[in-house]
Amino acid sequence: MSVEALFNPRSIALVGATDKSGWSISTLLNLRTHGFAGSVHLVNPRGGVVHGSPAFRSLTEIPEPVDLAYVMVPTAAVLGVLREGAKLGIRCYVILTAGFGEAGEEGARLESEISAFAAENGLTILGPNGNGYINAAADITPYGLPIAEPLLRGSVGVVLQSGALASSVLAFAQARNVGISLLTSMGNESVVAVTDVMDYLVDDPATKVVALFLETIRNPAEFARVARRALQAGKPIVALKIGRSRLASHTAQAHTGALVGDDDVIDAALRQLGVIRVRSLEDLIITAGLLAATGPLPGRRVGVVTPSGGASEIIADRAEDEGLELPPFAPETVARLAEIVPSFGTVANPLDVTGYVLIDRTLLGRALEVVTADPGIDLVMLLSEPPRVTPPDPAPAFALYSASARRIAESPVPVVVVSNVLTDVTEFGRRVQQETGFPYVAGGIEHGLHAIGAAVRWSEARARVLARPPALPCEPRPAPPGATGVWAEHRASALLASAGLPVVPSALVREEPEAVAAAEGFGYPVVLKIAAEGLGHKSDIGGVRLGLSGAEEVREAYRALINAMPSPSGPSPSGPSPSGPPPSGPPPSGLSPSGLSPSGLSSSGPTDSGPAGAGAASSGPGGSGAAASSGAVPALAGVLVQPQRSGGVELLVGLVRDPAWGLTLAVGLGGIWVEVLRDTALRVLPVDTEEVRLALSELRGTALLQGARGSEPADLDAVAEVVARIAAFAETLGDELESLEINPLLVTGSHVEALDALVTWRTL
Amino acid sequence: MSVEALFNPRSIALVGATDKSGWSISTLLNLRTHGFAGSVHLVNPRGGVVHGSPAFRSLTEIPEPVDLAYVMVPTAAVLGVLREGAKLGIRCYVILTAGFGEAGEEGARLESEISAFAAENGLTILGPNGNGYINAAADITPYGLPIAEPLLRGSVGVVLQSGALASSVLAFAQARNVGISLLTSMGNESVVAVTDVMDYLVDDPATKVVALFLETIRNPAEFARVARRALQAGKPIVALKIGRSRLASHTAQAHTGALVGDDDVIDAALRQLGVIRVRSLEDLIITAGLLAATGPLPGRRVGVVTPSGGASEIIADRAEDEGLELPPFAPETVARLAEIVPSFGTVANPLDVTGYVLIDRTLLGRALEVVTADPGIDLVMLLSEPPRVTPPDPAPAFALYSASARRIAESPVPVVVVSNVLTDVTEFGRRVQQETGFPYVAGGIEHGLHAIGAAVRWSEARARVLARPPALPCEPRPAPPGATGVWAEHRASALLASAGLPVVPSALVREEPEAVAAAEGFGYPVVLKIAAEGLGHKSDIGGVRLGLSGAEEVREAYRALINAMPSPSGPSPSGPSPSGPPPSGPPPSGLSPSGLSPSGLSSSGPTDSGPAGAGAASSGPGGSGAAASSGAVPALAGVLVQPQRSGGVELLVGLVRDPAWGLTLAVGLGGIWVEVLRDTALRVLPVDTEEVRLALSELRGTALLQGARGSEPADLDAVAEVVARIAAFAETLGDELESLEINPLLVTGSHVEALDALVTWRTL
Repeated sequence: MSVEALFNPRSIALVGATDKSGWSISTLLNLRTHGFAGSVHLVNPRGGVVHGSPAFRSLTEIPEPVDLAYVMVPTAAVLGVLREGAKLGIRCYVILTAGFGEAGEEGARLESEISAFAAENGLTILGPNGNGYINAAADITPYGLPIAEPLLRGSVGVVLQSGALASSVLAFAQARNVGISLLTSMGNESVVAVTDVMDYLVDDPATKVVALFLETIRNPAEFARVARRALQAGKPIVALKIGRSRLASHTAQAHTGALVGDDDVIDAALRQLGVIRVRSLEDLIITAGLLAATGPLPGRRVGVVTPSGGASEIIADRAEDEGLELPPFAPETVARLAEIVPSFGTVANPLDVTGYVLIDRTLLGRALEVVTADPGIDLVMLLSEPPRVTPPDPAPAFALYSASARRIAESPVPVVVVSNVLTDVTEFGRRVQQETGFPYVAGGIEHGLHAIGAAVRWSEARARVLARPPALPCEPRPAPPGATGVWAEHRASALLASAGLPVVPSALVREEPEAVAAAEGFGYPVVLKIAAEGLGHKSDIGGVRLGLSGAEEVREAYRALINAMPSPSGPSPSGPSPSGPPPSGPPPSGLSPSGLSPSGLSSSGPTDSGPAGAGAASSGPGGSGAAASSGAVPALAGVLVQPQRSGGVELLVGLVRDPAWGLTLAVGLGGIWVEVLRDTALRVLPVDTEEVRLALSELRGTALLQGARGSEPADLDAVAEVVARIAAFAETLGDELESLEINPLLVTGSHVEALDALVTWRTL
Repeated sequence: MSVEALFNPRSIALVGATDKSGWSISTLLNLRTHGFAGSVHLVNPRGGVVHGSPAFRSLTEIPEPVDLAYVMVPTAAVLGVLREGAKLGIRCYVILTAGFGEAGEEGARLESEISAFAAENGLTILGPNGNGYINAAADITPYGLPIAEPLLRGSVGVVLQSGALASSVLAFAQARNVGISLLTSMGNESVVAVTDVMDYLVDDPATKVVALFLETIRNPAEFARVARRALQAGKPIVALKIGRSRLASHTAQAHTGALVGDDDVIDAALRQLGVIRVRSLEDLIITAGLLAATGPLPGRRVGVVTPSGGASEIIADRAEDEGLELPPFAPETVARLAEIVPSFGTVANPLDVTGYVLIDRTLLGRALEVVTADPGIDLVMLLSEPPRVTPPDPAPAFALYSASARRIAESPVPVVVVSNVLTDVTEFGRRVQQETGFPYVAGGIEHGLHAIGAAVRWSEARARVLARPPALPCEPRPAPPGATGVWAEHRASALLASAGLPVVPSALVREEPEAVAAAEGFGYPVVLKIAAEGLGHKSDIGGVRLGLSGAEEVREAYRALINAMPSPSGPSPSGPSPSGPPPSGPPPSGLSPSGLSPSGLSSSGPTDSGPAGAGAASSGPGGSGAAASSGAVPALAGVLVQPQRSGGVELLVGLVRDPAWGLTLAVGLGGIWVEVLRDTALRVLPVDTEEVRLALSELRGTALLQGARGSEPADLDAVAEVVARIAAFAETLGDELESLEINPLLVTGSHVEALDALVTWRTL
């Protein structure tokens, strides 16, 4: 939806204007004092004089066209105003009035009436329950709360899903001398959504950076679309998305379900989209202000110039936190600096030019000039700030800051100025900045370094994304027959194998002799696992037997497994006979036991006949998850015979449907890495191989894949390729797929193989 | 050293006063404008008029006693001033002059002359190379940089090891309306040290909180003493200690050496001492200001009252980060709030009373009163702040804030006020706070929540420390004979066993038949390990054989080990004969092979004869550390035979001498936990059992000790007791001990046993 007209009216009617309302007073005052050039009409059903001017009794009485109606009437009267306005051809509205969706059922009903009416009549409505907007770039300020002087115009567009915080954000931006292009308080988003405003800002020539305060991302697909446009346009999005503390585990069956909270998915999605996520309102504005001033930064090698040893060391600490590099200066830089820095100082990066700056005011500037010429750095951080207090004679200050501003403007690399501590830029400081061209100052080392780190990471992410075509979603195919409930290993693994994915060979048998024959076909040692419909957690009931090294052990294990199978009245040795009826419902096509016979899969036979042990096949998907979601008694399908693997590194690969973002990939190392450390890397689908490699590199245990502790280094390209294929396959399974989990995916060098799998469908 | 006189002079001489120096101008101006009631004398060798007043040519000319000389003369002239002053009986000095220790060798020589002269003559000197101090509590401000108006008097004492940052800290404190008692810029600390000033502040009735900016902790023992005094006195110490980024690995031999950087030790020491470590200058002042206002907080259950849903959710996120709890309100609280909060709001903790506060200015205060009465909370966080802009009629603002201040003062639980964002408290805001008694406002949700978290943690740490007697250091005994170089397992384990610590039984043998006899004495399976002087890393040369289950395997392993032993010309099968000469140097008393015979230790024989595997004895101390520090060829002592253990959880216990803080305990889980995750908990010695338990609970893998993944839960009391005994034993070994490492310490339920050990002595 276009909001161009909403944000650029030439005439505004304040409907429900009254001397009794602070909102009414503020809105009119804002329009009058912040330069609105169009006409403002007051509407009050009683007419008379409001705010010292005559008021119209209705929109109809206004003798000229109205571009925007700012509506402050009681909740029940809002729809009437829209009806009247629509008839008059008024297309754009801000509804300040509250009492809608946020206030319960009756309010929600009124709100849906409004959005339905807007849809029918092509109305653009901001709100309800929002304070309006401040289009600082165009001096249009229909905004219901006081705007403190001065309103600073600039290139940061701010969109907030909170009315109360808008004033704080505005005050903070002002305190940091960060100018805004547009600030919008969204309200209930019943018609105009955050993404509509973002779209506008991406196209708005006055806006260089978009700053968001988000309580919820209502439409992830739309958000992703706009975020990609912003990245293409080179406009960073900085977002404070709240709700981190609520870990919602929306899927119980698979491991990954319990491991992945809603916020983890949001975090992954924002990173994939190149959105800078910050944690505080301060970082929101300081980071946005920095990026508005510098644009993309060329690299992470920072030269630091300060007048203080103490500050230099705080910077060194914080730079390490942010992954920034402070490389040693080149020899020529050191030589030139040695001539500038007093003899009692030390020439190093970070550079402390010493407190001698108090005697020689040119010292810092001369050192800066040398450091900006260093061939080994991408940008310079200068510790400085505009003066706080107006001196008796301000001329020297202006001269000094003008000289610095010139040096910074002429620098061959970007210079980011950061102050020691986060205090307001004072009125005199702002004047100095405005009149000398002294650049943006990031407020304080703590937040300033965070902003530099975020800007560098965004610049790198943008380059990475622009360098390769986006991963394309896979076309979903019809779900396989019988795609309901939980598919235990024998069906899940067969489904994967049918797609050509590497799965450990397996035979589903229903008689003891068959088990022995299958085992001998694979060669010992082998594994026997119970195969039952709807049984997600076979190891919980002793349904897995490892390291069987002869026929007698296989026979014994077979009998034990059959006996471990729970009967309708609970686990019992007299459970369903192994020769009993096959599972209800037709097996998926191509998944009959014969299709899985050892001979049929012998080409990918066992690759390792090492000693049995607590090895590769021990955990299994869902091992610590919840019980099978269906309460029905599992139906025995038979017993799976597989060759026993050993060695290698176990991965968990999970694909879980996030209710908002769709299928999400979680990869992690098996065992304690997921169970104790919850060490997984997440990606919203689609992903390509390169993205999976990046995800693997983010794991805390990634060193294990690279051969730490004497293990064979994993072929990361091979692993990433298989995982990306698994993810793509999951996409093709369509909306019916709830989750697909492979645990473990065994990696031995370049050999990658799923040892166990579990599929859960949305329909039970 | 007492600094009482230094900080409380009644007359001050400015020596080296001159119109040409900004420092001279500022110092005099500060004394004149900030209320110094005593006399100020200017001294300049040329006499004449300085700063508009007549100057004396020397200290001697001054006709009345001088309590403090503030010295700004050239570097070479400083000692002369001290000589003159000492003769006149002047005891206290601030030396602003630079060019001493910080400026190279000649400066260092001059500085040591000064400190020697001060020691001989009992002089108290602050500096050199420091700006002096601001005793705001007593209006005494001999400080060389401009002090911006107004100087706010309060109860935070600030000590800085940085001159340049002092002004920033002062400006920030002022911006947050945090008053100071004393601010000291330490300079080179050639006479008066940070700890001397801390001691003064602990006793100073004007000071409630001590805020430190530290580049280095020069005297850890002294620092620890003062920190303990402060904790006893209930005065929190908040410290920004820089240098986090430099990981110094000062000990190479043991695992722990590489794992523990200098800053890790400092971090552990500060935590043990109850010092609040912060990361930024903002947190330093905001946290100190909060604690000065509230004192200890009673618990971590916080009731939150805000006028904004967005802010409530940021607070919920940040509270979780800080480990604070936001419990649901009690039913009676909910019922009372339901009558206050507008119907479209939701009653929950955190509470959003809604933007209706703009209509009903009493709403927030009434809700606050209800929440403070909730029986389930320890403190209330109120989101509010003083006004920024002076309204046309300030009376209503004063009335409103007076009412709030009264409510807060009458609250049965502490109320901490936090603002949305970190902006300056404006002049009008400060006036409102001063005149209405509206309390301290922590600046912004981000830093405010950090401050509340830090204050709660400090309050808990203080209660914990005061509740039990401090762990007492153990008396060191003389080092055992031959305490040099690296003691490999056969000597290190015997040393531990001699102290009654639980060590796996072990036999040192030198002939094949002896090995078999020892193995049969223990029962199979057994482990054979090479035992050689100076060989730290036996597994690197194949010097460990696991899971030997019969006499033939033992014999084979014995021969293989002997052959694996490196000869002077490198590893060779014709290495030293097992019947060769014993190691050079006398074995430690009581550690002869006979003392370690199986029969001698049979009372603590094998407790587990489970199957062999890649189990408990596989890693060994130093497995991934550096090579034995001595370059000498290891001398074969024989072969160790031990019963093979299996199961249980492996811990690493390391005691490493930190050059500053002395012996430090590192505990962690073995394997990937230390090698990949570097997951260790540190404590500076001495420690008691309770402190070790706390350390174990801090491990990321602590769940494994509690029985995660099906393992037997460890008896944490038993583990902590053994670890504490090991630590105490290490202390008794005295200063000669460089490190003692046990890896692994096997824990199986309540059975705790060292399976391998390594001792490194400081003398090679």
